[in-house]
Amino acid sequence: MVSRAEFTLGQLAEALGATLEGDAARVVRGVAPLESAGPDDVSFLTDARYHPAAQASRAGAFVAAVGVGGLPAPVLRVAAPQQAMIDLLLLFHPAPPLVPGVHPSAVVAADARVDATAAVGPLVVIEAGARVGPGARVGALTYLGPGVEIGEDCVLGPHVTLLAGARLGRRVLVHPGAVIGADGFGFAFDGARHRKIPQVGGVVIEDDVEIGANCAIDRATFGDTIVRRGTKIDNLVQIGHNVEVGEHSILVAQVGVSGSSRLGRGVVLAGQVGVADHVTIGDGALVAAQGGVPSDLDAGGRYLGTPARPILEAKRIFAAETRLPDLLQRVRALERAVEALGGSLERKGKRGE
Amino acid sequence: MVSRAEFTLGQLAEALGATLEGDAARVVRGVAPLESAGPDDVSFLTDARYHPAAQASRAGAFVAAVGVGGLPAPVLRVAAPQQAMIDLLLLFHPAPPLVPGVHPSAVVAADARVDATAAVGPLVVIEAGARVGPGARVGALTYLGPGVEIGEDCVLGPHVTLLAGARLGRRVLVHPGAVIGADGFGFAFDGARHRKIPQVGGVVIEDDVEIGANCAIDRATFGDTIVRRGTKIDNLVQIGHNVEVGEHSILVAQVGVSGSSRLGRGVVLAGQVGVADHVTIGDGALVAAQGGVPSDLDAGGRYLGTPARPILEAKRIFAAETRLPDLLQRVRALERAVEALGGSLERKGKRGE
Amino acid sequence: MVSRAEFTLGQLAEALGATLEGDAARVVRGVAPLESAGPDDVSFLTDARYHPAAQASRAGAFVAAVGVGGLPAPVLRVAAPQQAMIDLLLLFHPAPPLVPGVHPSAVVAADARVDATAAVGPLVVIEAGARVGPGARVGALTYLGPGVEIGEDCVLGPHVTLLAGARLGRRVLVHPGAVIGADGFGFAFDGARHRKIPQVGGVVIEDDVEIGANCAIDRATFGDTIVRRGTKIDNLVQIGHNVEVGEHSILVAQVGVSGSSRLGRGVVLAGQVGVADHVTIGDGALVAAQGGVPSDLDAGGRYLGTPARPILEAKRIFAAETRLPDLLQRVRALERAVEALGGSLERKGKRGE
Repeated sequence: MVSRAEFTLGQLAEALGATLEGDAARVVRGVAPLESAGPDDVSFLTDARYHPAAQASRAGAFVAAVGVGGLPAPVLRVAAPQQAMIDLLLLFHPAPPLVPGVHPSAVVAADARVDATAAVGPLVVIEAGARVGPGARVGALTYLGPGVEIGEDCVLGPHVTLLAGARLGRRVLVHPGAVIGADGFGFAFDGARHRKIPQVGGVVIEDDVEIGANCAIDRATFGDTIVRRGTKIDNLVQIGHNVEVGEHSILVAQVGVSGSSRLGRGVVLAGQVGVADHVTIGDGALVAAQGGVPSDLDAGGRYLGTPARPILEAKRIFAAETRLPDLLQRVRALERAVEALGGSLERKGKRGE
Repeated sequence: MVSRAEFTLGQLAEALGATLEGDAARVVRGVAPLESAGPDDVSFLTDARYHPAAQASRAGAFVAAVGVGGLPAPVLRVAAPQQAMIDLLLLFHPAPPLVPGVHPSAVVAADARVDATAAVGPLVVIEAGARVGPGARVGALTYLGPGVEIGEDCVLGPHVTLLAGARLGRRVLVHPGAVIGADGFGFAFDGARHRKIPQVGGVVIEDDVEIGANCAIDRATFGDTIVRRGTKIDNLVQIGHNVEVGEHSILVAQVGVSGSSRLGRGVVLAGQVGVADHVTIGDGALVAAQGGVPSDLDAGGRYLGTPARPILEAKRIFAAETRLPDLLQRVRALERAVEALGGSLERKGKRGE
Repeated sequence: MVSRAEFTLGQLAEALGATLEGDAARVVRGVAPLESAGPDDVSFLTDARYHPAAQASRAGAFVAAVGVGGLPAPVLRVAAPQQAMIDLLLLFHPAPPLVPGVHPSAVVAADARVDATAAVGPLVVIEAGARVGPGARVGALTYLGPGVEIGEDCVLGPHVTLLAGARLGRRVLVHPGAVIGADGFGFAFDGARHRKIPQVGGVVIEDDVEIGANCAIDRATFGDTIVRRGTKIDNLVQIGHNVEVGEHSILVAQVGVSGSSRLGRGVVLAGQVGVADHVTIGDGALVAAQGGVPSDLDAGGRYLGTPARPILEAKRIFAAETRLPDLLQRVRALERAVEALGGSLERKGKRGE
């Protein structure tokens, strides 16, 4: 992705609210990390441990925190270099211009309402009663089911599926292949077969949520499955019916959350974590990769393993496991020694003591 | 999803085969769980532990088992409340009417056979020789490959992919993004590279199977990958080539079953379970969430953990692990004590004893 | 998938470079495994352990290694029976003929370049600046984003999504539902919310890579996510931004590789393995199913478990775990015996010793 933009360092200092140390007229044409930046690029130093890489960098300018010295090119001083890096990327790689209108190949129901400022791509299908808000972008080959609602400035697809009952807030970003609103997984065995429990609820995705490629977020049995505002969901994540995910949470790739579980605000589930059904996870809790959560977790806790345990306890167990084969031999040696001393090893404790 | 239907309690009693205690002329307009039901809703009490919630409910009527007393509104008495709840949901939320015909935007091969009573949605692609049975619904943007067969009353998609070699029985339900019939994963290393083993078999999905969003069920190398009747598969499940899944089994989200494994009847694999290749799992066996199955499991067994162990054994191990760091200290104390007593801790047992 | 081809054994001997023992004029019409082959089929014996099945087979001819005797039908002798089986399958099941051209229902940008020998299926979308190479097949309902490049003889889809920044080499095979080039998962918390770090890099897929159904391979933040030549990726695999997967590696279904990790040549990750971010896995390393890789792994090593340990060590730990509940009782018995002998069990060792 080659940027077509160019800026003087003076322009960048103004845009970033930075203090410039160096030539305000110097021009840069891209933003790049320290290792690959060339003289036409501005680069950034987001952490002190990258200082040697910055000193060796060929970048034409740097964004860096106050107090970071010894850099080999002009410096844009900022309070928060990582936030400034985002601002830089948005300057050099702005979203492609929105061209409002519905592509002639799209199939849009007569009573669907697409805002005049929205863009609907080729071969999109929009069913009866669906609504697409101002400034929204609906990518090619995306499907919006009956009555689906898409708020202002959402970006969907291509190849997204939103089924009846799905309502998205503003600025929601949905990556290709995500399916929102498929039936929850509910059956009742009648003695001979699993009868399907009709799933008649919906899915609410609040403002500023991001949903990764090939995710599946099921509609509720009754009521709504809810993903609250600001939460970011990586690829291939499964969210069962009637789950509620709190605000500003992070669900990394391949996480699975079973039906009716509730995640608080600011929860972090690392990759491949699984959460059982009807579990409550407190605000700010973190579960490390591949953890399994069979029951409630405390707010603010950090957990590891299956079953998920407080992280320090889990690490002590992992370390002890490594010594377990050796431990078996030590116990056998003890038993021999005690027998040689005339001791009795009769067992009478209760199980597992 | 607002229901548009309304029924008198007398009508519901007749439809459910229930005994009504209360006013047969009373009208209800929806079905809702105890907590959210209002005076226009009928609710249901499927388990005695919800009795307090029922007593506090504002529902206009209840479905409940014989012998459950003290409910604050008319009661429809039934033998099996959960089954009656399904019947209620089907009454209030019937499937949308099927409008037979092929949408003009669909691309259908000249020699494909689509039954006149089937409905094919917009932008569907149906390749040569495919057959769509009576009453089937093929959702928008779905792809049916060459020779694919879809039985009576199937419901597919939108965004489903069925590739050559896939044959579906009757009343199969396939959710968006599912891919049935992609190549199995088979290669033979020739000393320099992995050569692809052509996958020339098919996939058979029997009657009344449900397949979740974004699943992948691969075609066999030779012969067929088979999912037997009545089995329900949740989202993001992977089924490898030549697998056979028995009747009325349940595969929860993100399960993976490797090539050539055979699951019996009524097997339950909870979320994120993995099954190795060429494994046989007996009828009615259950594997708890995140379990790993490296080898055969007995019929009727209940298993937990990786490697999957009988559930009581696995739970005893989990409990013992918690005490493992403490155990290391106890053994060290024993060693000091035995040495102080003059015992010898020389090791001579064989490894791991 | 019924083959329409037929060959004499003489023709097959020539095509395979085999030595024929039997009637060169005999005709076979298909290739099938030992158990299901009939008199019209040629079968194959790829391993000595299948010899009893071969002796019982009804096959009309066999492919077998030199030195395998006692087979009940003519034999085509070869040095490498499994490679010969692949050759046979390619003879009996050749790829369907490529019909060059763009289906009239496809939506192709004016400045996209589709080679005249490529085949673009129905309802495909190809955006501005994209390039499709000679002999490539783009399946129905597939999306090629702006500037995407597809090399010679690639086979994509149906229902594949390639986003801006994706470049595929030659003979790359992408199965339905795969999404290549969605945004990497990167955010910076600004004190109130997770701000998205724009992902402006690309994805490079080298020659002869295969990518399974419903995979997700993210574009890099900067630079490229890379899958090197000859690597085979099964279904539902997640590859994060800036990952590099070395040549001729194997990633089995539902594997997840987190951002910026680097896999060497010939790495094998079995099903459901998870790799943390910024990890390096050496050439030829193997991780068994469901393993979790928190840190670097040595070249050539074989690993098991979470956290991944050398396979023999992990198996000893698994075996020892089975004995852990018993061990707790043995230690309790030791403690009683030592106390009875007058020993002191005061703890003074450092934690975990």
